Amino acid sequence: MTATNLMARRDHLLGAGAPIFYERPVNIVRGEGVWLYDDSGRRYLDMYNNVPCVGHCHPHVVEAMHNQAQTLNVHSRYLNETVLDYAERLANLHADNLTSVVFTCTGTEANEVALEIARAVTGGRGFICSDSAYHGNSAEVSKFTRVSQQTDGEKAKEIRAFPFPQRYRSIQEGVSDAELAELYLVEVERAIDGLRTDGIPLAGMLVCSIFANEGLPSIPCEFMPRASEIVRGAGGLVIADEVQAGFCRTGDWWGYQTTGYVPDIVTMGKPMGNGMPVAGAAATSALVDEFRRKKRYFNTFAASPLQAAAGMAVIDVVENEDLASSVEQVGKYLRAELSKFQTSCEHLADVRGHGLFIGMEWVQDRESKRPDADGAGTVVNLLRERGFLIGSAGPLGNILKIRPPLVFAKEHADLFLTAFEECIGQVEYA
Amino acid sequence: MTATNLMARRDHLLGAGAPIFYERPVNIVRGEGVWLYDDSGRRYLDMYNNVPCVGHCHPHVVEAMHNQAQTLNVHSRYLNETVLDYAERLANLHADNLTSVVFTCTGTEANEVALEIARAVTGGRGFICSDSAYHGNSAEVSKFTRVSQQTDGEKAKEIRAFPFPQRYRSIQEGVSDAELAELYLVEVERAIDGLRTDGIPLAGMLVCSIFANEGLPSIPCEFMPRASEIVRGAGGLVIADEVQAGFCRTGDWWGYQTTGYVPDIVTMGKPMGNGMPVAGAAATSALVDEFRRKKRYFNTFAASPLQAAAGMAVIDVVENEDLASSVEQVGKYLRAELSKFQTSCEHLADVRGHGLFIGMEWVQDRESKRPDADGAGTVVNLLRERGFLIGSAGPLGNILKIRPPLVFAKEHADLFLTAFEECIGQVEYA
Repeated sequence: MTATNLMARRDHLLGAGAPIFYERPVNIVRGEGVWLYDDSGRRYLDMYNNVPCVGHCHPHVVEAMHNQAQTLNVHSRYLNETVLDYAERLANLHADNLTSVVFTCTGTEANEVALEIARAVTGGRGFICSDSAYHGNSAEVSKFTRVSQQTDGEKAKEIRAFPFPQRYRSIQEGVSDAELAELYLVEVERAIDGLRTDGIPLAGMLVCSIFANEGLPSIPCEFMPRASEIVRGAGGLVIADEVQAGFCRTGDWWGYQTTGYVPDIVTMGKPMGNGMPVAGAAATSALVDEFRRKKRYFNTFAASPLQAAAGMAVIDVVENEDLASSVEQVGKYLRAELSKFQTSCEHLADVRGHGLFIGMEWVQDRESKRPDADGAGTVVNLLRERGFLIGSAGPLGNILKIRPPLVFAKEHADLFLTAFEECIGQVEYA
Repeated sequence: MTATNLMARRDHLLGAGAPIFYERPVNIVRGEGVWLYDDSGRRYLDMYNNVPCVGHCHPHVVEAMHNQAQTLNVHSRYLNETVLDYAERLANLHADNLTSVVFTCTGTEANEVALEIARAVTGGRGFICSDSAYHGNSAEVSKFTRVSQQTDGEKAKEIRAFPFPQRYRSIQEGVSDAELAELYLVEVERAIDGLRTDGIPLAGMLVCSIFANEGLPSIPCEFMPRASEIVRGAGGLVIADEVQAGFCRTGDWWGYQTTGYVPDIVTMGKPMGNGMPVAGAAATSALVDEFRRKKRYFNTFAASPLQAAAGMAVIDVVENEDLASSVEQVGKYLRAELSKFQTSCEHLADVRGHGLFIGMEWVQDRESKRPDADGAGTVVNLLRERGFLIGSAGPLGNILKIRPPLVFAKEHADLFLTAFEECIGQVEYA
């Protein structure tokens, strides 16, 4: 079936407007490692997908899932050691305080649980978050999506946003890192004060540890540890959304290690099962016990032996293939090489990120810093035609987003760098 | 590890109070067909689990998942025919109007989507539901859980409950089926009026087609078609929660066929993937298009080729093994045989249900109809000791709940009937 016919069929069966990538969508039929293949056999270098973190169809994960699916897959109201083994392995990867896990199927559900834990424990209802956040698709979690842009006052009453910390489009130019942190911390306090003024007790702060949906900004070093102190001082809990930031994406196991703080609750998702739906929230035993005491939470498909088998196999591969080191090295190399193109390309500004999660501002010109989402889209589509799959992101839509499977190696980076240089040279400006 | 040590480990890793079954929890290590096996090799007849609907570890489903996991598993922003094939097969199982599908990972998420569709299309915010409903675990969907018992007026403002229709504990004794329907329909109108009085436009009604969590009551024949008319007449949409009722559980493909109505939106979940997390909402093309236009809904793990492969394999087995007929026959036999015990057992009242979903009221005595949740719990635990796994349910906790995999056969029913007769004879009353 042609791509056009397939799109028509898709519009009918999934609804017209179901999100899809690229001006000419790709009909993907096979995946292996960092490669995706379309129906004509053409291969694409996958530089977008964080879910298949150890590579598409990794044999160790496939095998572990197959063995478990043949043996047992049942809900969590029986005893099952496989699930406990997985919870323990996950907890051991975290800071000492995060010892208990509530499993879910999606990152959205993990954030739902985290909000409930914070509310159950503090008795508060109010949360603060960044003004360009995305934490999931449920009615409750959607309230955090670009909360400052919401017009319905009722909706956002319990949720207050602060401007996300960033160096490139910072609220004040020419200040030191420490001074910039202070300026943004004032905004955090302002958001908390807003809740206080309206008589809404604080439950906590929910942020992505590396502000991924905000466009992966460079944030002042002191911001996250100090913001956490402020939140705790006001009686709230700190929730780290590690759905994108976690699992060695940054070169550290967790984004909170990269941005230098320790959360009270952490949520995890996307890469956990290499494509198998696995997610969860981890916290101290005391917090999770209190949540269990107050809420009768049960999730049919979660904490299953199949989730656990897939999840443990992913951890096996990350550890056995030492992906943390590889991510750190390849990411550093790729960022450095990409930065060099800034000399010749006026539109490529602020190459930034951590590990194998890279953001690049695409602008009209570097003097004005005017964001150019259309130009970014052109680059993304030119690369797709050449067989390289990246994306765009950020509140202004102008951030080129590179986030390949963690097994992405230097040889793949080199292939990309050649194509990228050619593509950015082809973007035409009037 | 002993069960006691395992429980301590579980309390620590998953939180003390994570839901678990039976006074002596079972350490399950293997499943096959209708059987579950504990760590000592002892087998249990599974008469509770609807998720592994074609039987634990069914080889056709295991194989389909394995093949797909080896080939491709990626999110839905590319073209992929496997996902479209699955959407089409699902739609073809439904009433003519339900042609488009929004996939999710859990039933909760499917209900979130259904609520959003109804709100997006009608412009209303208000819903009506039964007073003993359970539709999921998110903040929004939890508002439907036993809404009439909620003390926080704010929470339930947009959601109004009507007493669920039932014959055994009906709101009026000694009336005809038609008269009883009328009495309950007045309550549906009252719930809608409550929203109208408070100036909250109606978005729709959300109900389980067979009122499973309400305890699987016998409902008047005319209730569901007439209630649907009333809701539509008031400008709302009818959402059928088929997460428990669907997939031949009742002997029909869908619960709404069993209770005689056609919904505008249907939600599906538990049995869809035989344990793989798959769920979704189906509706007309026009409704789903409107939802897509107004909401940028995306679900990372949903509408994946792995979900589709598991889902299609389940439909294959249900069709190839003609489970609909088997469910109808075995269910009818089991209900009839269970009814016979009522002659000798004063506590066993109102054996009811559809297909392989059976509810039995356990009461102090049949004259008073006083519900006896403790007695029901005793029966459940006695059966567990004998190797038969059932559950209890209902707003009063006194309904014995039998809901085995659909491959449960007459020979399994006979094993159970012998054990059940012995167990109910052992429940002691002062």
